[in-house]
Amino acid sequence: MRFKKLNEAYIVRLDRGEKILEAIKDFCNKNQIKCGYFFGIGSLDEAELAHYIVNNKKYTSELLKQPLEITNLTGNITTMDNEVYLHCHITLSDVNMEAIAGHLKEGVVGATCEIILTELNGTINRKYEQKIGLNLLDL
Amino acid sequence: MRFKKLNEAYIVRLDRGEKILEAIKDFCNKNQIKCGYFFGIGSLDEAELAHYIVNNKKYTSELLKQPLEITNLTGNITTMDNEVYLHCHITLSDVNMEAIAGHLKEGVVGATCEIILTELNGTINRKYEQKIGLNLLDL
Amino acid sequence: MRFKKLNEAYIVRLDRGEKILEAIKDFCNKNQIKCGYFFGIGSLDEAELAHYIVNNKKYTSELLKQPLEITNLTGNITTMDNEVYLHCHITLSDVNMEAIAGHLKEGVVGATCEIILTELNGTINRKYEQKIGLNLLDL
Repeated sequence: MRFKKLNEAYIVRLDRGEKILEAIKDFCNKNQIKCGYFFGIGSLDEAELAHYIVNNKKYTSELLKQPLEITNLTGNITTMDNEVYLHCHITLSDVNMEAIAGHLKEGVVGATCEIILTELNGTINRKYEQKIGLNLLDL
Repeated sequence: MRFKKLNEAYIVRLDRGEKILEAIKDFCNKNQIKCGYFFGIGSLDEAELAHYIVNNKKYTSELLKQPLEITNLTGNITTMDNEVYLHCHITLSDVNMEAIAGHLKEGVVGATCEIILTELNGTINRKYEQKIGLNLLDL
Repeated sequence: MRFKKLNEAYIVRLDRGEKILEAIKDFCNKNQIKCGYFFGIGSLDEAELAHYIVNNKKYTSELLKQPLEITNLTGNITTMDNEVYLHCHITLSDVNMEAIAGHLKEGVVGATCEIILTELNGTINRKYEQKIGLNLLDL
């Protein structure tokens, strides 16, 4: 994990073997970032994706172990119980350029991962909502 | 629809059953936002996608009724005939993590939808261009 | 290529037949933009995508000649050897709304392409890293 701050944006590079969400959460904690959003491109060696069905409140998940391009990583940074909370979705492509996508549970960086992270001043908390079964933005 | 403004960004939460484009357009009207862009993640219960072929100026469209993760929503806000005009594309994934994508005609929110919307000062209009058959940015 | 600057964002319109990366690079050179990032939606008539396997340091690539929606274009602007360097990934969809994605080598605009490009003050260089086989961000 390396970074540079330009204007209000952090340009972050993650390296081979790093776990994306773990690394971003760690980065937020070290830099006292409590709210913001990020975008990225790069590649993964491994990804765990999830898909949620609100009707039965159940996640299905899939673990992929293969070289995958990250064609888009989109996430937001909020807090829950005073801890940094990341919510992140990802679009990947396999060797045949077929796209695979979902809620990102975790991903292990392949060649590199380049992220633009923007900090917002203020805080937004999450709160569990029984009816939906998820931790929603408490706005 | 709930929101909070931090810096120049609006953090917007859409809830189950809300129509994404209708809700964002309504939000822009109420907050006098005439130009900007937005990104989002979340899920849909229903989506109508379109694909345009410029050679014959024809749209094909597809209505999906199933639980879909929004892995990326990318859109811009401009004006046409003094009305807010949204142009938005979307990447979705189904229960098998297969990605489905296209021009978003409308989508009905599933569990939740989290959007970061940035306002730009100024206006950009659209104008119908006969040769292309679409309302293009009038820059 | 037409554009308008609002706040720190350039709103860029590319027209039918223009090459996306060539046009953005040209735009950066003319406007002395050395660092930043961009997002876009639109459509392509032709795309050349690549997929990199870090273990053997080999790219596979695929040339698509068909009408494709750009559901998300995500890229960053840095420099290498004092030249503007673009790194850009793309998510596309075909007439059946199936998503195709990868590292963008080049794309030829279909109906239109609408890009929001944000300039960052400062510079970030790239450096070839032997172990990975790619030009990584030199942070």
